[in-house]
Amino acid sequence: MPTTTQKRHPIALLTDFGLSDHFVGVMKGVIISMNPSVRIIDISHEVPAHDIANGGYLLWSSYRYFPPGTIFVCVVDPGVGSSRRILGVRTRLFTFLAPDNGLLDLVLSEEKHYHAVRIKEHGTFIAHKVSSTFHGRDVFAPIAADLSLGISLSRMGSRISLPLKHSLFFTSAESGGIARILHIDRFGNLITNLRWSEKKETVGIVVGGKTVRHWIENYAEAPAGRPSLILGSSGLVEIVVKEGKASEVLGVDSSVSVKVVKI
Amino acid sequence: MPTTTQKRHPIALLTDFGLSDHFVGVMKGVIISMNPSVRIIDISHEVPAHDIANGGYLLWSSYRYFPPGTIFVCVVDPGVGSSRRILGVRTRLFTFLAPDNGLLDLVLSEEKHYHAVRIKEHGTFIAHKVSSTFHGRDVFAPIAADLSLGISLSRMGSRISLPLKHSLFFTSAESGGIARILHIDRFGNLITNLRWSEKKETVGIVVGGKTVRHWIENYAEAPAGRPSLILGSSGLVEIVVKEGKASEVLGVDSSVSVKVVKI
Amino acid sequence: MPTTTQKRHPIALLTDFGLSDHFVGVMKGVIISMNPSVRIIDISHEVPAHDIANGGYLLWSSYRYFPPGTIFVCVVDPGVGSSRRILGVRTRLFTFLAPDNGLLDLVLSEEKHYHAVRIKEHGTFIAHKVSSTFHGRDVFAPIAADLSLGISLSRMGSRISLPLKHSLFFTSAESGGIARILHIDRFGNLITNLRWSEKKETVGIVVGGKTVRHWIENYAEAPAGRPSLILGSSGLVEIVVKEGKASEVLGVDSSVSVKVVKI
Repeated sequence: MPTTTQKRHPIALLTDFGLSDHFVGVMKGVIISMNPSVRIIDISHEVPAHDIANGGYLLWSSYRYFPPGTIFVCVVDPGVGSSRRILGVRTRLFTFLAPDNGLLDLVLSEEKHYHAVRIKEHGTFIAHKVSSTFHGRDVFAPIAADLSLGISLSRMGSRISLPLKHSLFFTSAESGGIARILHIDRFGNLITNLRWSEKKETVGIVVGGKTVRHWIENYAEAPAGRPSLILGSSGLVEIVVKEGKASEVLGVDSSVSVKVVKI
Repeated sequence: MPTTTQKRHPIALLTDFGLSDHFVGVMKGVIISMNPSVRIIDISHEVPAHDIANGGYLLWSSYRYFPPGTIFVCVVDPGVGSSRRILGVRTRLFTFLAPDNGLLDLVLSEEKHYHAVRIKEHGTFIAHKVSSTFHGRDVFAPIAADLSLGISLSRMGSRISLPLKHSLFFTSAESGGIARILHIDRFGNLITNLRWSEKKETVGIVVGGKTVRHWIENYAEAPAGRPSLILGSSGLVEIVVKEGKASEVLGVDSSVSVKVVKI
Repeated sequence: MPTTTQKRHPIALLTDFGLSDHFVGVMKGVIISMNPSVRIIDISHEVPAHDIANGGYLLWSSYRYFPPGTIFVCVVDPGVGSSRRILGVRTRLFTFLAPDNGLLDLVLSEEKHYHAVRIKEHGTFIAHKVSSTFHGRDVFAPIAADLSLGISLSRMGSRISLPLKHSLFFTSAESGGIARILHIDRFGNLITNLRWSEKKETVGIVVGGKTVRHWIENYAEAPAGRPSLILGSSGLVEIVVKEGKASEVLGVDSSVSVKVVKI
C-alpha cells in the first residue's frame, strides 16, 4: 500500500474535454482517490473536440520536457465505448496511455525503442462500473493512478506489436514539396510539419496564394503585419505575423496545404 | 499548528469566476497561505456567470468521485455582499461550502443524512478585512483553508435546518412527462434530467419540434449527423449527434423543455 | 541537492500563453523536472496576447494574497528573443521574474523597497539550448525552478537600478480628472484606475457619453440593467451593471478614457 509520502510518477493530462464541464476535475478526483499525493500536470484540455491530429501535435511538442517516469494520459477519443483498443506504451523514459486511434503516432515516430500493451479494460484494477461514454473517468484515470503507484504496464494487458510509424515530418526542403499545417497557436502562428535544423533562406513557402520568403530570428524583428518565416521552438518552420495573426492575414485554417518553393 | 507534512482534506473548487481574471488564482493564494500543502482540484470555473442551475449540475456530476473528506467550495454567488447566508453542509463523506441560493440543491436531494451550519462571516477565523464584492477571496477561501486543516464546521456557526429537498429529477418515464435540459456539454450533447437505470426503447423524446427515438450504446455507433438517445455517464438521458452538436442540429439551448412520448 | 520533502518557495504563473496550446504545461514540466515537489499556482494565462497593461493589472491585483516567498513568473513578452532584458526583482516578501517591458510597473509603484537584477540568460543555471521564441520554457521556467530551490537572485545576474515608478494610480478625485479603464472582468465590470479609500457620493464618472452617479455597496443592491459605481475588491472604482455587462450596456472597451465630474 502506498503511503502519503509516496509520490512516484507524475501524471500529465491531455484531452479534448475542455474546461467548462466537470470532466477534467472528475478525472483528477478519481486519480487522487487512488493516489492522494500524485503530481498532476495539465498539458491542455482545449484540443478541438475529436481532433486527433491536433492532440498528437501538442503531445509531441510537450513530452520531452517532463520528468523521466511521467505518465501521459491522452484522451481524444471519438470511439469511446466502441471496440477500439486502449494502448499503454512504454518508451525509454515515459509511459503513454491513449486510445489506439493515431494520437500517439507523432511521439512513436520519434522514439526508437518502445513496447506496447493492449490494456484489458476489465481487469481487477478497475473497480467500479464502466460507463460507455466517459472512459476518461472510468478507465484512463484509474489505470493512470495505478501506473503512478508503480504497477507495471505488463500486468495490465498483453503485449502487442504496433506497426512501425514512419516519420511524419518532412526533413528535407526539396523545392516543390508539399507540407501541412499541424497547428495554429494562440498567437495565430501557423506551425508546419517542416522540420529543419536551420533556416533555409533560398526557399520560401506558398500558403493561401502568397509566397512567404522573409526569414526572421525572433518575433520582435519581424516587420509588423507582414508574414515571415521562423524556425520555432519545436524545430518546425512557422509562418508568423507580428502584431497580427498569420492565420487571419493569410486567411487560412489548418486544413490548407503549403508548398516549398525555390526563391 | 499544522506542519508542512499535514495535508489533511483536499479542496475542490467550482466557481463562475472564469480563468481570464485573477479571481481563482487569488483564492488559491489565500488558501495556501493558510495551509501550504493542501491539495486543490478545480472542478470548473467556467460556469456561466450567475448560472446557479448549471453550477449545481456540475457539482452533482462530480462530487462522488472525490476522496472522502473533500471540501467542496462552490461560488456562484450573484448575492455576494448582501445578507444572503453562507452554508456549510456536512454529509456522510464530504463538506460543502456555498452561498444559500440553491447551488447545493441537487447534491442535497441525493444525500440522505447531512447537517447544515450557517457560517458566521466575521468569526475570528477570518482575519482580514472583508470586501463586499469578492467573498471567494475574503470568506470562502479562508474558511475552506481552516476546514482543510481540520477545524470543524460546528465551530464556524450555528446549526440550521434546511428545508428537505424533494428529488429534482424525473425518475420514471411516463408518456407525456415533461423534462428539462440541465446542461449542454462541450460536445453539444443535451443532458436531460431524466434519470433512468436503463434505456427505454419504447419511448422517445420530443425536443425542438423533433422526436428523437434512436437509442445507442455509445457515441461511435450513432449515425453521423442524426440525433440519438443515450444513457450518459451520470445516469441521465442525453440527446447526442455524432460528428456534430445536438444543440446546433436541433437548434435548442438549455431553456427548452423536452417531452417523453410513447413510440 | 533538494530532496523530495523540500518544497521551498511556491511559484505563481501569469502569462498570455492561453490554455489551448501546450505552452503552460511545458513550463510546468520543466519546473517539476528541476524541483519535483514545488507548488505551482496559476494566476491567469488568458492575458490577451501581448497586453502588458492587462497582465500588470492582474499581477498587482493578486500578488499580496500569496504566501511570503512566492516567486511570480510573469511572461507577457512581445520582445522574446530580442535584446530586451529579463528582470528579477526582490521585494520585502516576494520575488518577481519578468521581461523588462513594464509588466512589473504597477507592483513596483506599490512597493517601497526592492532591488533588481538583470538576469544573465546564459548562466550555468540554464542547461539546455535556448530557443528564440519560447523563453517561458527555456529561460523563465528554469530560473524559476532554481529560485524555488533557494538559489539567490544575486547569483543570477548583476544588480541594476530601475527608474523609480511614479504612482500610476489617481489617488484623488478632483473634478474634471481623467482616468483610465485598467481591465474589464468576466462579469463585464469596468475597473478604473481611480483608487479611493471610500466612495465619494458627490462625484460621478462620465463614460461612453453617459454620467454614472449611482453608488452601491454590493452588486445585489444595484438596480438591474443600470450602470452603478462601486468600490471594488482591489480598492478601485468600478462601473458595474447588475444582470448585464457594463461594457456592453455602455458600449465601451478598455481603450476609452473616463472623466470624474462633480454632481
